[in-house]
Amino acid sequence: MNSPRRSAEPPKADKAGVRRYNLSLVLRTVHDAGETTRAAVAAHVGLTRPAVSSLVEQLLERGLLVESGKTFSGQAGRPGTVLKPASTGPAGLGVELNVDYVSVCVADLTGADRVRRTVRLDNRALAPVEVLRRAATVAAEVLDEAAARDLRPTGVRLALPGLVAGGTVQQAPNLGWNRVDADTLFTRALAAARPAGAPALPVASDNEANVAALAELWFGGLGGIRTFVHVTGEIGVGGAIVLDGELLRGAHGFAGEIGHLTVVPDGPRCRCGSSGCLERYAGQAALLRAARAPGIDALVRRAEDGEARALAALDQAGRMLGVAVSGAVNLLDPEAVVLGGIYPRLTAWLAPAAEAELGLRVVSGLWTPARGRLRAASSTADAARGAAALVLRDILADPLAYDT
Amino acid sequence: MNSPRRSAEPPKADKAGVRRYNLSLVLRTVHDAGETTRAAVAAHVGLTRPAVSSLVEQLLERGLLVESGKTFSGQAGRPGTVLKPASTGPAGLGVELNVDYVSVCVADLTGADRVRRTVRLDNRALAPVEVLRRAATVAAEVLDEAAARDLRPTGVRLALPGLVAGGTVQQAPNLGWNRVDADTLFTRALAAARPAGAPALPVASDNEANVAALAELWFGGLGGIRTFVHVTGEIGVGGAIVLDGELLRGAHGFAGEIGHLTVVPDGPRCRCGSSGCLERYAGQAALLRAARAPGIDALVRRAEDGEARALAALDQAGRMLGVAVSGAVNLLDPEAVVLGGIYPRLTAWLAPAAEAELGLRVVSGLWTPARGRLRAASSTADAARGAAALVLRDILADPLAYDT
Repeated sequence: MNSPRRSAEPPKADKAGVRRYNLSLVLRTVHDAGETTRAAVAAHVGLTRPAVSSLVEQLLERGLLVESGKTFSGQAGRPGTVLKPASTGPAGLGVELNVDYVSVCVADLTGADRVRRTVRLDNRALAPVEVLRRAATVAAEVLDEAAARDLRPTGVRLALPGLVAGGTVQQAPNLGWNRVDADTLFTRALAAARPAGAPALPVASDNEANVAALAELWFGGLGGIRTFVHVTGEIGVGGAIVLDGELLRGAHGFAGEIGHLTVVPDGPRCRCGSSGCLERYAGQAALLRAARAPGIDALVRRAEDGEARALAALDQAGRMLGVAVSGAVNLLDPEAVVLGGIYPRLTAWLAPAAEAELGLRVVSGLWTPARGRLRAASSTADAARGAAALVLRDILADPLAYDT
Repeated sequence: MNSPRRSAEPPKADKAGVRRYNLSLVLRTVHDAGETTRAAVAAHVGLTRPAVSSLVEQLLERGLLVESGKTFSGQAGRPGTVLKPASTGPAGLGVELNVDYVSVCVADLTGADRVRRTVRLDNRALAPVEVLRRAATVAAEVLDEAAARDLRPTGVRLALPGLVAGGTVQQAPNLGWNRVDADTLFTRALAAARPAGAPALPVASDNEANVAALAELWFGGLGGIRTFVHVTGEIGVGGAIVLDGELLRGAHGFAGEIGHLTVVPDGPRCRCGSSGCLERYAGQAALLRAARAPGIDALVRRAEDGEARALAALDQAGRMLGVAVSGAVNLLDPEAVVLGGIYPRLTAWLAPAAEAELGLRVVSGLWTPARGRLRAASSTADAARGAAALVLRDILADPLAYDT
């Protein structure tokens, strides 16, 4: 029987290590507060006022914090100068590379989405190296625009619709990718797309659905909910699980694949090799095929017009979504399930069928429609922004690791 | 965006609180080591030798540790007297109350199963108060036997096949229970079954599958695996999820219900109100019905004899188990899935069908039969022992909270 593990310690016990840890602590405290004062930071982190002032000075010098002229009257003590995270300087670059589009975002240190470009591209038709080359071209344009606004991303996070481990896309059935070394290929492509001599940015890949879920947690309208399942309808269906504010990654980094939950064991074959996966009923491709609609806009119009085939396709997708989500709820007992991607626009038609299944199949009985546990994702929280924010999290964790 | 939470601190910062915390730290260190010395404990916990000696003295006085005459030669320093957790004195009482049996276990502080009684009872036919009364009678007998061996349980953990929250069984479909205040009813029944004047023992209820999974983690043969799904075949099918050595309880305490994962959306009705649940194919009742066998022993004999109906029923149950487990694996990406309850005896027939489904349906491709990720539960790790060990965990966490 194992004892509870002992508490985490600051990474290094030497003086420089402690200072580095405390710099992060102060930066994170200001970041989480949005606006605060030196006195409030000192009270929050349990360091002396002079110690905090010295740390703040270093963060101001590095351009990670800014002071605002106005004063801020706290609950105790004298008013102090307001501290905020900088909205210029160090930033994050997020690149969502999905099946039929690329979306690139620069977020500043406050998490705000400052530069954005989204390009429709059919990435299924192209070789991985070409897809990553095109995405890098868009990213290079966005970096130019960011530079013009005095934003300097310190790294790149790629969000990809597949199983990602150690910088490699092990499998992305809807892109047709197998063992693609996305980190290396994108690093090369980005260097080629930028002016000679531009500093190389570190690139790291992640699963698109995971990153979208973090964006929902950080920037969405969850109102304090920290344990939820996130289901993203794209060409395929992505999924992610957040437990108490942390992504569940699983033993190999492959957790959250709700799109490949079996909903009908002898159902149609899926690109993943299985049959009857949720994706084959509720993914965008399957849904449009069932509705015989050319796109989501057309599907919405036809559903609004009450077209029988569109309504039947949405009802079927909603039911299957309900079956799969019920499984996830019975296993995980989350506070909510968030539907993102194409689903928010389709909620009016998907939700009734899905909630009927949830009411029937969730054994705890807590998922009746009246409880509103099935909710649409926020429109401002997407994978590109989540990816950019993961770069920010690295800056917050170790503010000295980046040249500024 | 939330920062990582700060590290946990000892519960109280005053001197008595720190001492209490350190007593627990020393006791847990000896417990986890099995056998050790004062010097080794001091090195492990980072306290001085005199401080550890004083804490050990107090634990010896309270009968939580014992010294052994033999000496133990460690890697550094002089040989010291061996310290071990006591195998008499404070202990835990676990009561597994399942659909067709009650099993009661007393575990000593080392976790060893010291007194055990298992009684076949058809608990479906009786009112909850009567079921708990019979279980309390067995528990009282076990307490007498424990006292004769100088074992004194400090509390009782009940393990029940249903959704348990706050001491109440919200729902136990296979027992036919709804909102049964098990803690209170069992406390009363146990007091009535014991001699007048016997000290009252605190009672707490938990889900049977959760407790069985902890038993597997603590006493089974997982060889360091700390992230797994545990599926227990009983009359129903229970499930539990362990992530990095901790039970996933979920937002309301109802996580892990793999038995009610839908495997065939339009399948037969389940007692839970849904249809096509795993339990309706792979639970003991469903399996025996499909095989037309009167019990598991008979089913095993017929399968060994190659009887077609028995083999078909086992193949079907294995396939459905494989479908549901694939769903859990796609969501959670565990290192292993452990099959307990009736399943270990049936592995030869269930596993091939289940592994074929896992190979087909797990999108990561990591669940081929050759990898052996589907494994039978250990025979020495059951819910009653896990329940008893949960009482021990309370003693280890705060050794002064119990009269000894």
